[in-house]
Amino acid sequence: MNKEGLLLIISGPSGSGKGTVTRKLPEDVFALSISMTTRQKRGEEVDGKHYIFCTEEEFVKVREEGGLLEHASFSGNFYGTPVSYVKQKTLEGKNVVLEIEVVGALQVKEKYPEAVLIFLMPPTILELGKRLRDRGTESEDEIERRLRIAHEEMAELPKYDYLVINDDIEQALADIHAIVNVEGLKPFRGEGKVDRFYGNNVNS
Amino acid sequence: MNKEGLLLIISGPSGSGKGTVTRKLPEDVFALSISMTTRQKRGEEVDGKHYIFCTEEEFVKVREEGGLLEHASFSGNFYGTPVSYVKQKTLEGKNVVLEIEVVGALQVKEKYPEAVLIFLMPPTILELGKRLRDRGTESEDEIERRLRIAHEEMAELPKYDYLVINDDIEQALADIHAIVNVEGLKPFRGEGKVDRFYGNNVNS
Repeated sequence: MNKEGLLLIISGPSGSGKGTVTRKLPEDVFALSISMTTRQKRGEEVDGKHYIFCTEEEFVKVREEGGLLEHASFSGNFYGTPVSYVKQKTLEGKNVVLEIEVVGALQVKEKYPEAVLIFLMPPTILELGKRLRDRGTESEDEIERRLRIAHEEMAELPKYDYLVINDDIEQALADIHAIVNVEGLKPFRGEGKVDRFYGNNVNS
Repeated sequence: MNKEGLLLIISGPSGSGKGTVTRKLPEDVFALSISMTTRQKRGEEVDGKHYIFCTEEEFVKVREEGGLLEHASFSGNFYGTPVSYVKQKTLEGKNVVLEIEVVGALQVKEKYPEAVLIFLMPPTILELGKRLRDRGTESEDEIERRLRIAHEEMAELPKYDYLVINDDIEQALADIHAIVNVEGLKPFRGEGKVDRFYGNNVNS
């Protein structure tokens, strides 16, 4: 049996670099969480890879059975994070990475308290504004709105397990790796070690 | 200002290798905690280095003022861990290491909740017995007694922050270094980072 993987929630303000960081985590030990959605498949998207596509009836059934870690709707479509995928991958020994905004992250932590909550933060609020402006995709009003939300999201920081500053991306990735290793030293994740201490047979 | 150091409590059964591990932690980032004691100075012992030697009156005064993290008496002498030394060294940026048995460790954690509690454990109970016997200093009865105590101490493991297996000492030391680094990523230890995010002046 592999050592069970973690559920790693990477969250933080829009512009903190969540997407860039999560995409750089190596596939041999990390698996990106996949959302279930009722929206139509687009272009090259692959079912079961980019999203799990489903009907509204299927979505509601899974949700009512408590099968979603969190869910939300955008533009009339449902999106949610299925527990089953997380359980399957963590049992295979992968660390499942969920990149999600702050409200959703706190929802997941409530349902799955053993999840590891990482708040990704740019070094300064000036840098955050700069990153949002450099994208060149949002209006100044929209940027101001995001900065106000960032301010509110910062207030939730004490609920997080870790704060990683995304100034240098290599350092941020090294911090995330270190967190995963050290989380494995928590006593409640070390059941097998105690069994081995007493000489009980455990698959390892 | 230096980044504030941690209070690191290294604890575990007799024979787990607490002493060997703590003595190998490098002095540039770690400082071993010093006990205050009423016992007579012996041989080459240096006041303020090996122990802080004091009279019974001085000891009782410090204890009554709440100035000890934990205390105990052995053979008619008092021993205790002064808070003042820990505060001074952590403010200087050193990680203060307290090597202590399980009961004392839990006492300290109660008084100083931000302390990091590490349970050091040999890989198996057979290995623990072997280490105690290899010392050649205790009778078989004493060894059996210590193994029984080890068993009771194992029951306190869930109260610890981390479990480090002391099989390979280099690995155990690497684990302790990783723990110190990752503890620095806890939001409540990152006040300065939040100030910097908002562009407030902090000494760093």
